Amino acid sequence: MAAYVFGHKNPDSDTVCGAIALANLKTKIGEEAVAVTQGEINPETAFILEKFGVAAPEVMTSVAGKDVYLVDHSDLAQSMDDVADAEIKGIVDHHKLGDVTTSQPLECWIWPVGCTCTVLKSMYNYFNVEITKDIAGLMLCAILSDTVIFKSATCTDADKAACEDLKAIAGVDDMMELGMDMFKVKSAVDGTPARELVLRDYKDFDMNGKKVGIGQLEVVDLSILDGVKADLAKDIAALKEEGGRHSVFLLLTDIIKEGSEMLVASDDESVVEKAFGSAVKDGKVYLDGVMSRKKQVVPNFEKAFA
Amino acid sequence: MAAYVFGHKNPDSDTVCGAIALANLKTKIGEEAVAVTQGEINPETAFILEKFGVAAPEVMTSVAGKDVYLVDHSDLAQSMDDVADAEIKGIVDHHKLGDVTTSQPLECWIWPVGCTCTVLKSMYNYFNVEITKDIAGLMLCAILSDTVIFKSATCTDADKAACEDLKAIAGVDDMMELGMDMFKVKSAVDGTPARELVLRDYKDFDMNGKKVGIGQLEVVDLSILDGVKADLAKDIAALKEEGGRHSVFLLLTDIIKEGSEMLVASDDESVVEKAFGSAVKDGKVYLDGVMSRKKQVVPNFEKAFA
Repeated sequence: MAAYVFGHKNPDSDTVCGAIALANLKTKIGEEAVAVTQGEINPETAFILEKFGVAAPEVMTSVAGKDVYLVDHSDLAQSMDDVADAEIKGIVDHHKLGDVTTSQPLECWIWPVGCTCTVLKSMYNYFNVEITKDIAGLMLCAILSDTVIFKSATCTDADKAACEDLKAIAGVDDMMELGMDMFKVKSAVDGTPARELVLRDYKDFDMNGKKVGIGQLEVVDLSILDGVKADLAKDIAALKEEGGRHSVFLLLTDIIKEGSEMLVASDDESVVEKAFGSAVKDGKVYLDGVMSRKKQVVPNFEKAFA
Repeated sequence: MAAYVFGHKNPDSDTVCGAIALANLKTKIGEEAVAVTQGEINPETAFILEKFGVAAPEVMTSVAGKDVYLVDHSDLAQSMDDVADAEIKGIVDHHKLGDVTTSQPLECWIWPVGCTCTVLKSMYNYFNVEITKDIAGLMLCAILSDTVIFKSATCTDADKAACEDLKAIAGVDDMMELGMDMFKVKSAVDGTPARELVLRDYKDFDMNGKKVGIGQLEVVDLSILDGVKADLAKDIAALKEEGGRHSVFLLLTDIIKEGSEMLVASDDESVVEKAFGSAVKDGKVYLDGVMSRKKQVVPNFEKAFA
């Protein structure tokens, strides 16, 4: 029985490319594995897969009774709904340790680096398995995406070193140019419904018993969002009500200026000031230097909610 | 600030030797780290440390506000009581994934092998750090102990390969003889109070909301325990009452015959038949081929309690 490899809900490029890379590695070391996703891929990921000629994984929403590997998450809320009924063989991730538990020993490669694909690059090295050109391209793009072309606070020397190696294998001449091309695709918002933009890179968290959603849109210039900002604010207010959430925050991140405007829909806006020292005004606040949900936003909110 | 490295409560040889080996590795790659234990070391571990000339780590019972690495466990119940107030920088383990969570990205090396020190051997290789003779001796003994000299169901080829390497580094001629010497120390029960024997290798588990304790004594011949068995049975009954536990099970494992007599103190003895297909008689049951708490006993009870 093949094992299924998948990343978090609302798949981003690291989740999709990471699942493909791990399934490829496992298959090459003699353990049949298939990458799947929990939902449709986003435009950035579609751009990457097309560029390197790799088919999008199938969508799958139930894994009960199956052998599975989790990539890019270890939280139940971000995993398949019935993951507790699957046999979790392993986890490859770069986030904080979530609430997934197992009843059997497993394999965890979880490192404090900028991207799951950086961990996977080390795993290929460890198992002495050659990375093919197409898989290297996917992994390179995932790292450039997750580290916001090395600008994110989560980026480490290991991420940069992995990219140098992967760039050579993938035959990419200019990875900065590749990164900017990717972010232009990611920045495109014209004609996209507000809900789709909010959910493009969105995660729910349990913060001290309260359900808190945090989404992020990364753009090459915040002005790109001027025309849709009012709709986004309305939509996160609706999303908060629909899901019985305490708060929904949407980070509009300017990857060039290296800061985020955060749109806020919350039962208690004071948590934002508690978390970041800046008060919300008209449902928003600018957070200078804040680019990483994982390293800067989630930990601060967890302390504020504690 | 140095990071503190520690294993589970009621430290066994893998927990102590693993903590020492990880602290040694971290220090060598430039990250100051100190091994500590949550309690006094057992006679087997004392034998190992003396044999290879390594001092026992200090006992420590609070780590609030400190940077810490966990070895050989990822369950809150088995960790320091205030571990939630520490900064968990990493976990090196070989068990099922427990309920420890973090608010920051961390480093996890968790593999489905027989011993934490087998994972640590791979980490030394990965970081290209030389293992000194004394540390190699400790790691070798920990693997021989956790895998019951390769007889446990948890033993993998990786454990055996690690021992071959470590044996050469440690300058050990006959590792089977070393293993038997160790187990003779472990088997000694003369004059030891029943409670000390019960707790020598004991862990509490949360099984579907019920507190369940499982201890294990490994001996080279069950007859060694004839004189103390009645006291052990009385003691686990007392231990069950003291802690508000649903059950306490004590495995008396014959490492030569490769099976365990299990002493049972339980609010509902039928869980044993549910778990193993054999009924309890006079507070005990023989489980042929059962040697591993982690791989054979805990998963079966978890299913029976579910």
